[in-house]
Amino acid sequence: MSGVTRNPNFAKLAGGYLFPEIGRRRNAYLAANPDMASRIISLGIGDTTLPIPEHILGGLVTSASKLGTKEGYSGYGAEQGMGSLRAKIADKLYGGLIKDSEVFVSDGAKCDIMRIQQVFGSDVTTAVQVSEVNIRIKYYTHTLAILFTSLQLNLLSLTNFVKTISCQDPSYPVYVDTSVMMGQTGNINPDTKQYENIVYMPCTAENDFFPDIENIPRADIVYFCSPNNPTGAAATKEQLELLVKVCKERGSILVFDAAYAPFIRSPGVPKSIFEIEGAREVAIECNSFSKYAGFTGVRLGWVVVPDELSFADGSKVRDDFNRVMTTAFNGASNIVQGGGLACLDDEGLAEIDNLIDYYMENAKLLKDAMTSIGYSVYGGTDAPYVFVKLPDGKGSWDAFTEILEKAQVVTIPGAGFGPGGDGYLRLSAFAPRDTVIEACDRLKKTMVLPVAV
Amino acid sequence: MSGVTRNPNFAKLAGGYLFPEIGRRRNAYLAANPDMASRIISLGIGDTTLPIPEHILGGLVTSASKLGTKEGYSGYGAEQGMGSLRAKIADKLYGGLIKDSEVFVSDGAKCDIMRIQQVFGSDVTTAVQVSEVNIRIKYYTHTLAILFTSLQLNLLSLTNFVKTISCQDPSYPVYVDTSVMMGQTGNINPDTKQYENIVYMPCTAENDFFPDIENIPRADIVYFCSPNNPTGAAATKEQLELLVKVCKERGSILVFDAAYAPFIRSPGVPKSIFEIEGAREVAIECNSFSKYAGFTGVRLGWVVVPDELSFADGSKVRDDFNRVMTTAFNGASNIVQGGGLACLDDEGLAEIDNLIDYYMENAKLLKDAMTSIGYSVYGGTDAPYVFVKLPDGKGSWDAFTEILEKAQVVTIPGAGFGPGGDGYLRLSAFAPRDTVIEACDRLKKTMVLPVAV
Repeated sequence: MSGVTRNPNFAKLAGGYLFPEIGRRRNAYLAANPDMASRIISLGIGDTTLPIPEHILGGLVTSASKLGTKEGYSGYGAEQGMGSLRAKIADKLYGGLIKDSEVFVSDGAKCDIMRIQQVFGSDVTTAVQVSEVNIRIKYYTHTLAILFTSLQLNLLSLTNFVKTISCQDPSYPVYVDTSVMMGQTGNINPDTKQYENIVYMPCTAENDFFPDIENIPRADIVYFCSPNNPTGAAATKEQLELLVKVCKERGSILVFDAAYAPFIRSPGVPKSIFEIEGAREVAIECNSFSKYAGFTGVRLGWVVVPDELSFADGSKVRDDFNRVMTTAFNGASNIVQGGGLACLDDEGLAEIDNLIDYYMENAKLLKDAMTSIGYSVYGGTDAPYVFVKLPDGKGSWDAFTEILEKAQVVTIPGAGFGPGGDGYLRLSAFAPRDTVIEACDRLKKTMVLPVAV
Repeated sequence: MSGVTRNPNFAKLAGGYLFPEIGRRRNAYLAANPDMASRIISLGIGDTTLPIPEHILGGLVTSASKLGTKEGYSGYGAEQGMGSLRAKIADKLYGGLIKDSEVFVSDGAKCDIMRIQQVFGSDVTTAVQVSEVNIRIKYYTHTLAILFTSLQLNLLSLTNFVKTISCQDPSYPVYVDTSVMMGQTGNINPDTKQYENIVYMPCTAENDFFPDIENIPRADIVYFCSPNNPTGAAATKEQLELLVKVCKERGSILVFDAAYAPFIRSPGVPKSIFEIEGAREVAIECNSFSKYAGFTGVRLGWVVVPDELSFADGSKVRDDFNRVMTTAFNGASNIVQGGGLACLDDEGLAEIDNLIDYYMENAKLLKDAMTSIGYSVYGGTDAPYVFVKLPDGKGSWDAFTEILEKAQVVTIPGAGFGPGGDGYLRLSAFAPRDTVIEACDRLKKTMVLPVAV
């Protein structure tokens, strides 16, 4: 055993990371019911299942092949990504709203969120409260001599968090979990299941999945995901204008996760926070090729940090993010970046549209199936997730277990995304069509409600 | 301007990350001397230049191609890496000294070091020092009644670092820079160029590049790189036994960076810390395919965290590292892991041996050239780096500039690796053979010493 103290932030974390936990429960069920193995259908983790289409695949294969030639070989590239890919992202996906130099190419949004956390840091301060003072005093006749022979202070330490964090509840668990790891939070409250020093913004059917932000306390860093994982809600232009306005007035930094932007089909719904006026002074945007192009296992994402975004001392957030990228990251794989370039060719963009159409048709099937048996269902029109309201009083982990046991369908309990998600289930539309149809069939048979909820 | 405080740790960082700084200086020279562009030879950053050999390339191309088929497509994999690759690393590179489950596959050692830092955390505490106590005392005749009518404490806050960090000086700058970012250090001392709360272990020609560890203060986390970057020194078995023994006695955790292990040619020099008895209780090992197989741009590495390694409370380091990997990382690219599997086939291992032979012949040429003109030269026999002692009083940044201007050869100043590296230059053997020969020729013409140093 070493003499090194364990990082106390890790002890605060409640359980393991969500998705491995889902896998463990699924495997435990299969261990007890081995004959069910062939029947399992996953509508769980948002993992793409369609093969990578021809043009994009060509980009990957060509990039790999050329590493075998003297002329085509490349070693370390820029930590921020290939110049050509940064330029193509700025041009094809942002239409000039951002500059090439503001794009940081990466191995995915999950890793980027941790790198963003590193920029912000934990910088907690510890204040002290004096709880006890003992002073012995010697008294000599005729002399008021006071000698401090012993001065003992018992100090109670009080932690002050310099930064506060806010996120939607429910939301992608990485925002909260990385905040806990970085020491930006206190302990979890066992009753509310909320961590101290996180400002939770409830997003449920009651408020149409958009928080009452003007009446929620200010936070330094506001994480916001739209289209949302897990609720499937895509914020409107007016909602995002309000979000940017409030963040600007309060001096908050908005970390906007747009990983599901290409699934937006409703006209007028912004696909980037930078479509909103003033966002360049308040927002960082995270994005990813994972769901666009079936790159979940291939690993490619990006972050946009605009030049105008600065800390209270006027220093640029971009410069500190660049320092993290150059010091603690070494660029996305050159092979994978070649695939990213192909994604953004006209042929690649057309292929991506086809993939998304396919998954959105799955979402419609799931939505229709659950509606037909009496459930209230959200999302699924501008996002690949269908968010199902459970009957009052039904816990989402219980529903997860019941559906696994009765229908052999893996879902994700809403509570896995934060306490506000309890009472909901997330269904992912990323499964192959035939299994989605089969899953709908089984859910309709096993999950019938007596009356609509 | 936002109202968010800048993370104060970033202000502590002295300048940019080393290698981009080298690039900036090279580009500034070329901007002023554009006719020299075609003459530039880089012996700077340790970046491979030979194409990826056939069998390994086949692994990459096949892995990419199969993503285009229904059967071969894969999405998210295990965050810790493919089971087959973890098993093959444990078998082929460690001969069973470690278990599959102790291997965590990643996108490279630089990123892994930051993830290791996240596990350790900054958990600084703030202690207080009482600077002034004012107490008014009322004295009543015949009664020793003391009333505290005013108690004023002026508190000076003193930061206590719960963990201390130690590293070789000079060393790969990522250990120190990530420690600063995580808030594990104080400010840099402008005279010594050393950060407070880092225990520097001098490694220079005077101590044969191995620190006097028994007489260096204890640290919680000891970073140690062997074969060393930049000195090229490979620690002997006896030296590593002493290192493990001291770490064990002191309850330190050893982070052992073995990224250059395959360059070891001297018999008996360990290629892994786990060849040393007792290392499983004290060490984490970082490693990488970057220099093995020309994967610097392809991105693949791994970390070994043995089951026996624990914190002072008995909890396993492996569990917390796993929590970071699952929460803030999403696995190395599936295409790239396919390349890693091919590396560890017999054909792949033979190809790697050939690549390394080529680079080691380059190292020999560089070493001979500098020796022939009177320099004392270290490294280059078990590592791809040649470490050149400069004449007394010559600063390494000055020598860097002089060689760039006189010979158009990019080197790396030893001072870039820590204050102990000043007075040395690092030459990298990763350049193509013809440019190494040309560089040797130019160095011999421009860098002649009057007498041996």
